[in-house]
Amino acid sequence: MLTERSRKIFDACGADRLFVTAPDLRFYLTGFPCSDGCVTVDENGTDFYTDARYIEAASEALKGSGIRVSLPPEGRYIKLAEGAKKLAVALSRTSADEYIALSGKVGGITDCTPVFDEAMGVKDGDELAAIKKACEIADRAYTDMLGVFKEGVSENDAAAELEYRMRRYGASGTSFETIMAFGEGSSVPHHETGARRLKFGDVILIDFGCKWGGYCSDCTRTLLFGDDKKHEDFKKAYAAVLKAHFAAKENITCGMTGHEADETARSVLREAGLDKYFTHSLGHGIGINIHEYPYLAPRRKNVLKDGMVFSDEPGVYFRGDFGIRIEDSVTLQNGRVESLTQTDKKLLIL
Amino acid sequence: MLTERSRKIFDACGADRLFVTAPDLRFYLTGFPCSDGCVTVDENGTDFYTDARYIEAASEALKGSGIRVSLPPEGRYIKLAEGAKKLAVALSRTSADEYIALSGKVGGITDCTPVFDEAMGVKDGDELAAIKKACEIADRAYTDMLGVFKEGVSENDAAAELEYRMRRYGASGTSFETIMAFGEGSSVPHHETGARRLKFGDVILIDFGCKWGGYCSDCTRTLLFGDDKKHEDFKKAYAAVLKAHFAAKENITCGMTGHEADETARSVLREAGLDKYFTHSLGHGIGINIHEYPYLAPRRKNVLKDGMVFSDEPGVYFRGDFGIRIEDSVTLQNGRVESLTQTDKKLLIL
Repeated sequence: MLTERSRKIFDACGADRLFVTAPDLRFYLTGFPCSDGCVTVDENGTDFYTDARYIEAASEALKGSGIRVSLPPEGRYIKLAEGAKKLAVALSRTSADEYIALSGKVGGITDCTPVFDEAMGVKDGDELAAIKKACEIADRAYTDMLGVFKEGVSENDAAAELEYRMRRYGASGTSFETIMAFGEGSSVPHHETGARRLKFGDVILIDFGCKWGGYCSDCTRTLLFGDDKKHEDFKKAYAAVLKAHFAAKENITCGMTGHEADETARSVLREAGLDKYFTHSLGHGIGINIHEYPYLAPRRKNVLKDGMVFSDEPGVYFRGDFGIRIEDSVTLQNGRVESLTQTDKKLLIL
Repeated sequence: MLTERSRKIFDACGADRLFVTAPDLRFYLTGFPCSDGCVTVDENGTDFYTDARYIEAASEALKGSGIRVSLPPEGRYIKLAEGAKKLAVALSRTSADEYIALSGKVGGITDCTPVFDEAMGVKDGDELAAIKKACEIADRAYTDMLGVFKEGVSENDAAAELEYRMRRYGASGTSFETIMAFGEGSSVPHHETGARRLKFGDVILIDFGCKWGGYCSDCTRTLLFGDDKKHEDFKKAYAAVLKAHFAAKENITCGMTGHEADETARSVLREAGLDKYFTHSLGHGIGINIHEYPYLAPRRKNVLKDGMVFSDEPGVYFRGDFGIRIEDSVTLQNGRVESLTQTDKKLLIL
């Protein structure tokens, strides 16, 4: 029951009222997606306020959920904070001007970001099912679009074909702008997809994801378009990145910190002398947001738990030459990592 | 020159340093899109700081721009604020926790949101060209996809066909989740596109947009899929909404407030006895963000100026029956409204 979710968050906040305006947190508490609204929780229960554009759809969607739906008093959400002794607000997802306005209305403010992070970090059955569905759609679309890779196709057109298939297979959209990188573009970790055309011998790096039911998938594959026999360095590096990817899957378990998890893969690349080319972190939580808690990165102390969903994405980048990233969306279940994206990661030469 | 843009913003802020982390404002100041970074401006010039994933691409993109590119000291943007007497920060686009951290580092903070709103509200030639391009792509995709509307096609599949064409014609993605509403779904202003299949006699409402060069388009068309001769009320309402749409185009001019602009269309619907079904505002600014300053809405006092780009989108919604919205992206040039989206708005019966 949705009200259990908001009750649990409220109880953990140590406040007399919870006040939420951020879209991702509102969606987590209500399951109703919209660009504008406010959720409040106090000892009397959970209320969802939204504007005239959404009020009827929200009332219908939340019928029987235990969440009351109303228009805000005088059209202003800020009024809903008035009179609270201690208001719980997610400071990481509240704008500074809203915070300043709220500060003048209440006795005090406490930050509930860590409470939301911990709660949203561990996915329940419905959430895991939505992410699995998004991953299945992405897997199917990727598998079906490989025939598009022909000499002369542009990055933009190849990305369009992949996105079209995700949409047709049920996705509501992409979870981020697709990175489709050919050749030297693959050496830029966040390459901007463009007009570059595919040539024989190119490395292809595709970082893509879609949304289903409000939840994201995230996956990266690196392929070779024709083997021009000049790819010995690439193949060696690919083997090392794949080994690092699998080392993370083998060794990450519950109770590890984000730092320790990152190290499971980074140490493999260090042994191969490639760690200085691994210029980002191993992974990030995946859920309603494409990047969220927990973080698998050097210096991160967040502790991994059963039910969490995150990316396992080691990569190496050789400026102006090529890059390799191998990424799955994964989940921790019974202390073991399970893959949610499942297409083959053995080096594919088209 | 990009540094003139940041210099102009800085000069208007009345601060000794400008500190910007919001993605849309960073893109406005640098033209470089990325998920993480910080721009600072002081009397010594403009600096852009970003992390290891972007640093090389940013350095290359901003070569010769006059903007210096660096990694942040000790990996932390907050350090860049230290020592400022008065720091200009966009409070509407800064998180509360960042604001609290900044407050402890500087003499004082001043809000530069209004300065950015005013500057970004008026588009320069390059910005207008990018929006025009996004509008042309959307127009072309819409025109090309009308053949998709056949009995039995689902909202999701029709949306996929439209988005695919926008992508193939050069868009980097959608500017928001496409609203494809068939039949009674059209009566929900922010209908969630779903599995509903098209039937003879359905109203079709499509609200769609794409991004090109970092800028958005926004357009809505309402059509009829076959005329079952039960559409007299619909046709009357359509004529009224179209009249309201054109009244806004005829009458909106420089110097008007958002409230006055909204009233140009609302008064037409009032005369037709339909104003109570017009449950949202007439329009919003369009640019790097799909919804931005200025706002054409009751009670809004922002003043419209030459060079602004916004939507003209009156609509009426009859719960459970049908809805109508007719929207163009438009710009004010020499005191007159010009359409940027240009497909026909005469009632189309497929």
